[in-house]
Order: sequence, then C-alpha cells, then structure tokens
Amino acid sequence: MIRTWIILVSLLVTAGCTQEAQMVDGKTENEKQIAATIIAMEKAALERWGKGDPSGFLEISASDVVYFDPFLDKRLNGIDELKSLYEGIRGEVNVERYELIDPKVQLCGDVAVLTFNYTGYTNGEASRWNCTEVYRKQNDCWKIIQTHWSFTKPSIK
Amino acid sequence: MIRTWIILVSLLVTAGCTQEAQMVDGKTENEKQIAATIIAMEKAALERWGKGDPSGFLEISASDVVYFDPFLDKRLNGIDELKSLYEGIRGEVNVERYELIDPKVQLCGDVAVLTFNYTGYTNGEASRWNCTEVYRKQNDCWKIIQTHWSFTKPSIK
Repeated sequence: MIRTWIILVSLLVTAGCTQEAQMVDGKTENEKQIAATIIAMEKAALERWGKGDPSGFLEISASDVVYFDPFLDKRLNGIDELKSLYEGIRGEVNVERYELIDPKVQLCGDVAVLTFNYTGYTNGEASRWNCTEVYRKQNDCWKIIQTHWSFTKPSIK
Repeated sequence: MIRTWIILVSLLVTAGCTQEAQMVDGKTENEKQIAATIIAMEKAALERWGKGDPSGFLEISASDVVYFDPFLDKRLNGIDELKSLYEGIRGEVNVERYELIDPKVQLCGDVAVLTFNYTGYTNGEASRWNCTEVYRKQNDCWKIIQTHWSFTKPSIK
C-alpha cells in the first residue's frame, strides 16, 4: 500500500513539471495568471527602483538570492550582500520612465523564470538592459532567488 | 480515501520544493550529486565552446531556451534562433584556458539554477564574464532553458 502511494506521488511530482514544460507556448489559465502575477511584481519593484527606493526588490528577494550586475567584480550571494549594495545607492536612482520589453515567463512547478529587455530614460538618455529574474514559490509567496542585470550591446572601450 | 491521497500528494509536492529551498546551504547527498552533474555538463560544453564547437551547448539546450549575450540587440527565443547565432560563429571561438569561478547550483524540484563567474584566456588576454544558466529536468535529462552571459564590470565608452 505504501509502495503504491510512493509510486503515485513520484508520478505526480514528475508530471507536474513535465506538463507545464510542455505547455510553455500554450499556457493554461492558471499559468497565465502566474505569469501576470510575476510580471506585476517585477513592475511594482521597478516603479519603486526608478524613484530611488530599492526596498521593492529587497522585499521580494529570498534569503538565498544570488545577484549579478555590470558594476560588480563578481556574483553577490545572499540577501545581506544585496541589502548592503542597495542601501549604498538608496535615493540615487532616478528613472523618469521605462519600457519593459517582451517579458516572458517560463514556468516549471514552483519556479518561474522571467526574462525581458528594459530601456530606462533619464534626462533624455536611454539606458538599455537585459534581465533575468528567477522566482521561487515558498510559503505561497513568489520570491526572487536569482537576479542578473546586464547592459544590452555595451560599447566597450 | 481518494481525498486522503490528494491531501498527501499536495503536501509532498509542496514540501518537495520548500525542503530543497531550505537546504541550499546544507545539501543532501542527492542534491550534491545533481549540482555536480550540472557543473560537469556546463564544463563539458565550455570545453567544446573554447575549441570553436558550439554544439556542446546546443545539444543540452531545450527547444524553448531563451538567451542573452552582450552582442545582441535583444533576447533570443527558442533553439532555432540560438542555433542560427551559434552556427554563424562555429570555428571562430578560441579559448586557451578558462576558470569557472565559484559555481553555485540552486535546486528546486526539477529546476537547477547555475551561476558562476568565468575568466577566459586567449593570447594572454583575460575576458571576464558573469553567467546564469537555468536547467530544467525533462524526460530524465537536464536541459538549459535560459542562458545569460554578460561582461563582468565592462569599461563603457
């Protein structure tokens, strides 16, 4: 009896991911809702970010978040390192408007991979970025466990 | 009876991710093995990449892979776009040696998020990168569903 349960559970756990993986381009209603939720969370954090407030991202980042941006020597590990970085620039970021370009959510079980291009405008200057955010569902909340910001096609010296 | 099963299955499915999430810094033997597998796959593909052969990455990328690198105007979507990019530079990449720096695998169910810094050396010149690879398990194989390569601290014009 226990063996039957174990087999059933294994099958369902495996099926959970496979099914969603196969439906990436033909999302169910539930998947569409999750994608909309993830994109709305990202936009809400970006709105605050553009006004100099990094707490929007800090509040939705997990304790074990890892982080890349082009100003760092290497990956940051954990929320404390991210907090330290962000508190150092609190109040300094000013984005007048931005475009979130072609956001895409790849959903697999309790992980959602959000990717998009982003253009921010400040004093008439455009700044173009690539972004990957990996969200993980924990205790019914989605939290970011990986952030990667990079310049789109930078002009290197 | 069926209701009991459904509750049990729901609990176990939910616990599957939460448990692994909590054990990121205290991995089980199985999690260590998966992390080692993912890192070995990445290294094997990088070895081929450094000799001008992009097929190592193409063979382990999923049909719905998305991709960023700093030479592109925007995200690539799907294996056909990635193939087209990579076939265009087949035979042109030459990395004499490289360092895979501090690779980290965050495991959640059938998704593994690999992040690392990378330094490649060609003709005595070092090239420093940030990388995020998201692997998804499908049909007992791990495949990349998201790749993001960017320059570490680029000197912008």
